[in-house]
Amino acid sequence: MDYTPIREGEAYGQKKGLNVDWAAFADAWRAGYAPAMNRVRTGELPWKNIDALHRLILDDLLERFNLTGLNETEIDHLNRVWHRLEPWPDSVSGLARLRQRFILATLSNGNVALLVNMAKNAGLPWDCILSAELAKQYKPDPEVYLTAADLLGLTPAQVMMVAAHNSDLQAAQRVGFKTAFVARPQEHGPHQSADLEADPSVDVISADFNDLADKLLFWLQVKVQAGPSN
Amino acid sequence: MDYTPIREGEAYGQKKGLNVDWAAFADAWRAGYAPAMNRVRTGELPWKNIDALHRLILDDLLERFNLTGLNETEIDHLNRVWHRLEPWPDSVSGLARLRQRFILATLSNGNVALLVNMAKNAGLPWDCILSAELAKQYKPDPEVYLTAADLLGLTPAQVMMVAAHNSDLQAAQRVGFKTAFVARPQEHGPHQSADLEADPSVDVISADFNDLADKLLFWLQVKVQAGPSN
Repeated sequence: MDYTPIREGEAYGQKKGLNVDWAAFADAWRAGYAPAMNRVRTGELPWKNIDALHRLILDDLLERFNLTGLNETEIDHLNRVWHRLEPWPDSVSGLARLRQRFILATLSNGNVALLVNMAKNAGLPWDCILSAELAKQYKPDPEVYLTAADLLGLTPAQVMMVAAHNSDLQAAQRVGFKTAFVARPQEHGPHQSADLEADPSVDVISADFNDLADKLLFWLQVKVQAGPSN
Repeated sequence: MDYTPIREGEAYGQKKGLNVDWAAFADAWRAGYAPAMNRVRTGELPWKNIDALHRLILDDLLERFNLTGLNETEIDHLNRVWHRLEPWPDSVSGLARLRQRFILATLSNGNVALLVNMAKNAGLPWDCILSAELAKQYKPDPEVYLTAADLLGLTPAQVMMVAAHNSDLQAAQRVGFKTAFVARPQEHGPHQSADLEADPSVDVISADFNDLADKLLFWLQVKVQAGPSN
């Protein structure tokens, strides 16, 4: 699997002659993400963005995996590996088609810099980078969704949340967003057990971003032909 | 002069048979902008974004110009005329060239929705929409610039503020940004008296965005050739 944190870790390990299980390292790093956000959500930690939380977890992992001898520049570069994730193969083409008719914004728990760098690196054609960081809360807290709609000058009913995670869509629904599920059944590898299918409550179920573009652009065409009262 | 607020006003006036001096109307609207922001900056008004301030001024102007009979949808559409400004002719091409090597973000007092819609309408190729709205302060207050650098994950010295207004560049300099002046000697029409030339303290002086792209891309080439220690 071409997963950037593993690939970059392995390349780095070879260069430096390190004996580290980079798949386990990446898994452990990722496993620390939700608990770290929850420490912020419950108020145990003051607001910290994802780069800062990733670094908290990383500092701990460097000890656990006995990864010594990295200087601050190397640790900071490693910490930003999450800015360099590869896009799913359908994302750029699907988003480009959607962008011709819709305003496309991110709404991730990832911080703005992470999302800007990821978009730049991957060529993701967003109109706007929005993040939980702008609300200083983490999803699924409702303020994140409401802040995004407010910044776009839209009512919640004018916004559609697109996600591969049902919990994210359900939280968006609770504040009045439309919802679309994009299936990513391999996001957590071949043995993924959650989010294999959409919750039946979502408005649009799609296999990937090209399928989502097919469905939303068709819906728009029908809507335009039906006239303004529809 | 093809200035969107005047052009749209005239078209609207013709359709409705209104006798309004739309150039004077647009001038009065624009003249209300800085005083309205200052009411927020001094704390006289609680935080309001530019759409809300434009609307405050507009409601007053509709009375002063005796423009009655607009319904809420029409007033709201008129208020968002600032989302539909035309770009300067060099902006799209100059920004597209700069974007190949730099992260391009707005940093306007205009609110996020205004900037997103303007970019979408005009084809301005930003990587990220940043706004004074995200700091809930207005330029030239330093928090606006510092919030932008922080959201981009950059130190102030890694950021260059590009503007046609010397006061904006001077405020950016005070927090440690690099600065570039792009001349817009006709921004306020043929009799403009301020900001005809750059203050000598700015780092780069350019005639337009293509000239800025020439200068920054050349500088980058020299820097790369000189090696990493430079």
